[in-house]
Amino acid sequence: MKLSELAEKINAKLTAGNDVEIAGINSIDAASNSELTYAEDDKNILKLADSQAAAVILSSACDSIDKPQLIVDKIGMAVIDVLNIFAPKLTVPSPGIHPAAVVDRSAKIAPTASIGPNCAIEANAVIGENCVVKANCFVGENTQIGENTILNSNVSVYHNCVIGKNCVMHSGAVIGANGFGYEFIDGQHKFIPHNGGVIIEDCVDIGANACVDRAKFGNTKIGAGTKIDNLVSIAHNVTVGKCSIIIAFAGIAGSTKIGNGVVIAGQVGIAGHLNIGDGVTIGAQSGVMQDIEPGLTVVGAPPLDVKAKFREFVCIAKLPDMMRDFKKLKRKVDKLDKSENN
Amino acid sequence: MKLSELAEKINAKLTAGNDVEIAGINSIDAASNSELTYAEDDKNILKLADSQAAAVILSSACDSIDKPQLIVDKIGMAVIDVLNIFAPKLTVPSPGIHPAAVVDRSAKIAPTASIGPNCAIEANAVIGENCVVKANCFVGENTQIGENTILNSNVSVYHNCVIGKNCVMHSGAVIGANGFGYEFIDGQHKFIPHNGGVIIEDCVDIGANACVDRAKFGNTKIGAGTKIDNLVSIAHNVTVGKCSIIIAFAGIAGSTKIGNGVVIAGQVGIAGHLNIGDGVTIGAQSGVMQDIEPGLTVVGAPPLDVKAKFREFVCIAKLPDMMRDFKKLKRKVDKLDKSENN
Amino acid sequence: MKLSELAEKINAKLTAGNDVEIAGINSIDAASNSELTYAEDDKNILKLADSQAAAVILSSACDSIDKPQLIVDKIGMAVIDVLNIFAPKLTVPSPGIHPAAVVDRSAKIAPTASIGPNCAIEANAVIGENCVVKANCFVGENTQIGENTILNSNVSVYHNCVIGKNCVMHSGAVIGANGFGYEFIDGQHKFIPHNGGVIIEDCVDIGANACVDRAKFGNTKIGAGTKIDNLVSIAHNVTVGKCSIIIAFAGIAGSTKIGNGVVIAGQVGIAGHLNIGDGVTIGAQSGVMQDIEPGLTVVGAPPLDVKAKFREFVCIAKLPDMMRDFKKLKRKVDKLDKSENN
Repeated sequence: MKLSELAEKINAKLTAGNDVEIAGINSIDAASNSELTYAEDDKNILKLADSQAAAVILSSACDSIDKPQLIVDKIGMAVIDVLNIFAPKLTVPSPGIHPAAVVDRSAKIAPTASIGPNCAIEANAVIGENCVVKANCFVGENTQIGENTILNSNVSVYHNCVIGKNCVMHSGAVIGANGFGYEFIDGQHKFIPHNGGVIIEDCVDIGANACVDRAKFGNTKIGAGTKIDNLVSIAHNVTVGKCSIIIAFAGIAGSTKIGNGVVIAGQVGIAGHLNIGDGVTIGAQSGVMQDIEPGLTVVGAPPLDVKAKFREFVCIAKLPDMMRDFKKLKRKVDKLDKSENN
Repeated sequence: MKLSELAEKINAKLTAGNDVEIAGINSIDAASNSELTYAEDDKNILKLADSQAAAVILSSACDSIDKPQLIVDKIGMAVIDVLNIFAPKLTVPSPGIHPAAVVDRSAKIAPTASIGPNCAIEANAVIGENCVVKANCFVGENTQIGENTILNSNVSVYHNCVIGKNCVMHSGAVIGANGFGYEFIDGQHKFIPHNGGVIIEDCVDIGANACVDRAKFGNTKIGAGTKIDNLVSIAHNVTVGKCSIIIAFAGIAGSTKIGNGVVIAGQVGIAGHLNIGDGVTIGAQSGVMQDIEPGLTVVGAPPLDVKAKFREFVCIAKLPDMMRDFKKLKRKVDKLDKSENN
Repeated sequence: MKLSELAEKINAKLTAGNDVEIAGINSIDAASNSELTYAEDDKNILKLADSQAAAVILSSACDSIDKPQLIVDKIGMAVIDVLNIFAPKLTVPSPGIHPAAVVDRSAKIAPTASIGPNCAIEANAVIGENCVVKANCFVGENTQIGENTILNSNVSVYHNCVIGKNCVMHSGAVIGANGFGYEFIDGQHKFIPHNGGVIIEDCVDIGANACVDRAKFGNTKIGAGTKIDNLVSIAHNVTVGKCSIIIAFAGIAGSTKIGNGVVIAGQVGIAGHLNIGDGVTIGAQSGVMQDIEPGLTVVGAPPLDVKAKFREFVCIAKLPDMMRDFKKLKRKVDKLDKSENN
C-alpha cells in the first residue's frame, strides 16, 4: 500500500517525501525501510535518526526528521488503525458446530456462532451470535455467553456463569471454579458450597490462565470494559468495577470491591473484604491490607502515596551510613558528657 | 421452604417472628427479604439494622434485632448446611465413558465413574468408583484416581501419579509435570530426568491452574485434607503435611517440607530444602529463606514474628522524620562540641 | 543391575564393597538399601552415616564412609545418567495422527510425529519429525513446531508462532495469546491489535501454565536453551536471550530485553522497556524498574547488590533499638545544651 493511500485511510496529514510502498508497522529500532514507525515523545523522536523506517507517525510535524511524516491527532489510535490494516490474514472460523464438538441438545447455539472441535457444551448453555469458541473449550450447564465473544482454546467456564458481549477469554482461563472457602470444623477444613456464579459484563478481556472464582452466594462480578491480564486470580464474591486494569499475577481476595477505572499493577495482593475506590492506581508488588480512598496512587506493603514511598526508599538506602554516623555521634556526646561532668 | 422447616433441618432454635418463605442465603447487605443471612460478630450484628434479610443465623439470641433469629452452635456449619439445602440443581453426571472420550483398553474405569467427552485416559490408568472426570481431561499412564474424586474440565494429570479419594481438582490444574531441575554442563542447562511421581492423599482440593510437579525420585506429596488455591506452584519433591492451606500464587521450591496445619498466605515464596514446622502461619507476600519452627506466625522477607514486623513497619514509617531530627541533633552536638573546645 | 555394571555404565570408579543389586537412586534420607544416593558436599557426606543407601556417588573417595563409593568427575552428570538408566518404562507414543484428533488437511504433519487424541491443528500448521503432541493440544494456523519437540496435554499455541527443535511445553502452557496492550481512548481501553508472533528457539522448556504472549509487531522471542518454569508470564515483544533461567511466578513486562545466561528467580517482577544484561542474576521477589548491567547479582525492590541488600536488612532489623537509643541521645544532648547555656 502506498504511503499516501495509508495516510488517507488513517486520516493523517502526509508531509513531503517519496510515496513509498508500505508493508507494515514496527518499532523504531526494528522497522525496515518498507515499514512505518511512530514516535510519541522527544526521546523517541531522537531515536528516529538511526531508524530505517520508511515513514513516521507523529502528533505534530518536526523539521529535524528526514522521513515522510504522518501527522495525526492521536498516535495511539493511528497505530491501532495501521495494525488493523496490516493484520495477518487468517481463516475466518466458519459458523456452526464442528462435528467433533459435543453439544448438549438443550444448549442454544446461535446459528452464526462457531463452535470448534473437541468443545464440550453442557445442558441449557447459551452461545450468542457471532461467538467464536475455539477448540477444547468447556462451557458448563446454564452458562450464557454474549454476542461476539471469543473463547480461545482450552478455556473452561463452569456452570451458571454469565459472560457478556464482545469479551475475549484467552487460552486456559478458568471462570467459575469454586471459591477458596473452608470452615475449620472438627479438625478438618470443610468446604463451603459455592452456590453463586460469575457475571462478566461486556467488553471484558481475560488473560491466559487467569482465574475468576464463583461466588458463595450472589455473584463474583467483573464490570464492563475491564481488562485482566494473564495469570490473575479474582476470588469469590469480588466485585470489579468498569474499565479497570488488572495486571499479571495480581490476586484479589474474597469479597473485596474494586472501583471503576482502577489500575492494579503486576504481583499486587489485595486482602479480602476491602474497598478500593474509583480511579485508584496501585503500584507493582504492593500488598494492600486496608481500604484505599478514590483517586489515590499508592505503592508498597503497606501501600503509601508514591512520594512518601520514594522518600522511604531514599531513607532506607541512607540507613547504613546514618547508623555509622549515629555511633560516632553517640561517642561524641559521651565525651562531651564526661568532660561536662568533670 | 418455610423458615421453621429450615430451622429444623439445620438444628437451629428459631426465635419468634413470621414463618416466612425462605428462598436462599446471602450476605447481610445483599440479602433480599426472602433470604436468610448470618452475623458472626458485633460489627456484623450492627449492620443487620440496614439489612433486608428475612431472618438471621446467630450463635446467641440478640434482643436488639427485629428479625426472626436462628440460634445455632456453629454459624459456619449452619451456613454450610443452608448452602447445601439451596444448592443450584444441576444435571448429575451419568456414569460411564462418554463416546467422545478416548480411553485406553488397559485402563480400569470403575462402573460408577463418569468420564466426560474429549477426555484422554492412557494405559493402565485407574479411575475409582463415583469419580467424575469432566470434559477435556488428560490422565496419564499408570495414574490412579481414588473414589469420589472430581476432575473438572481441562485438568492434566501426568503418568505415574496417585490421587486419593474425595479430592477436587479444578480446571487447568496440572499434576505431575516435570520438576524444574537442570544441571549446567558444558554451557547448557541439561535436564535432570524426573523418574518420581506425585502422591496426593485423600480430601485434597487443588485450585484452578495450580501446578504440582513430579519428583526427581520418590514422590512429591500433598497430605490428606490439605487445600490448595488457584495458581499455586508446588515444586518437585516437596512434602506438604495434612490439613494445610496454601493460598493463591504461593510458590514452594524443591524438596521443602511443609508440616501439618500450616497456613501459607497468598504470594508467599519459600526457598528449597527448608523445613516449615507444624502449625506455622506465614503472612502474605513473605519470602522464606530459612526453616521455621513449629507454631510460629511470621510475615515479611525475611519473615519475622508478626509483632516484630509491625514494629519494623512503624519504625520505617518514622524514618524520614527521624533522619531530619538526626541532622538537627548533629548540628546541635557540633555546636556544643565547638563551644566546649573554645 | 549389579553395582559394578552400573559403575561401568556411568564411567565411575567403584571402591571396594559388596557388588549389590541396585534398583534405583534416591535422596540420602529416603534411599533404601537397594538404592544409590549421592553427596555433593561435606554437609551431605556427614548425613550418609544415617543413610540406608546401598552405595554413594561422590566426586572423590572418602575413607570415613562405610558404603561402596562410585567416584565420578561430575556428580550432576552421573545422577542424570543413573536416572536415565532407571527411568520408568512408559508406552512410546505411536507415530501418526490419532483418529480423535482434528487436523486441517493443509497442515503438514511429519510421518514420525505423534498427534494425540482430541488435538486440534489448524490450517498450514507444521509439526516436525518425532514431535509428540499429547492429548487436547491446540496448534493454531501457520504455527510451526520443530523436530523432537514435545507438547504435553492441554497446551495451546496460537497462530503464526514458531517453536524450535527439542523443546518441551508442559501442560496448560499458552504460547501466543494477545499481549496486554490497550490505548485509553474516549473513556475506553481500546485493544491494540497484535499482528506479531512468538519465536521460541531450540531446546527451550516452558513450564506448566506458563504464558508467552504474542508481539504487537515483530516477535516475542525466547532464545535457545532457555528454561522457563511453571506459571511464568512473558509479555508482548519481550526478548529473552540464550540459556537463561526464569523461575515460577516471574513476570516480565512488555518489550524488555533479557540477556544470555540470566537467572530470574521466583516471583520477580521486571517492568517494561528495560535491558537486563548478560549473566545477571536477580534474587527472588525482586522488583526491577531500571536496566541492570551485565554480570550483576541483585536482589530487592529496588534491586541492590546482594551485599548492600543484606547490609540494609541488618540495619532495618536494628532500627527499633536504634530509634530508642536516638531518643535517649536527644535527651542527653538537650541536658548538655541546657547546662551549657546556664
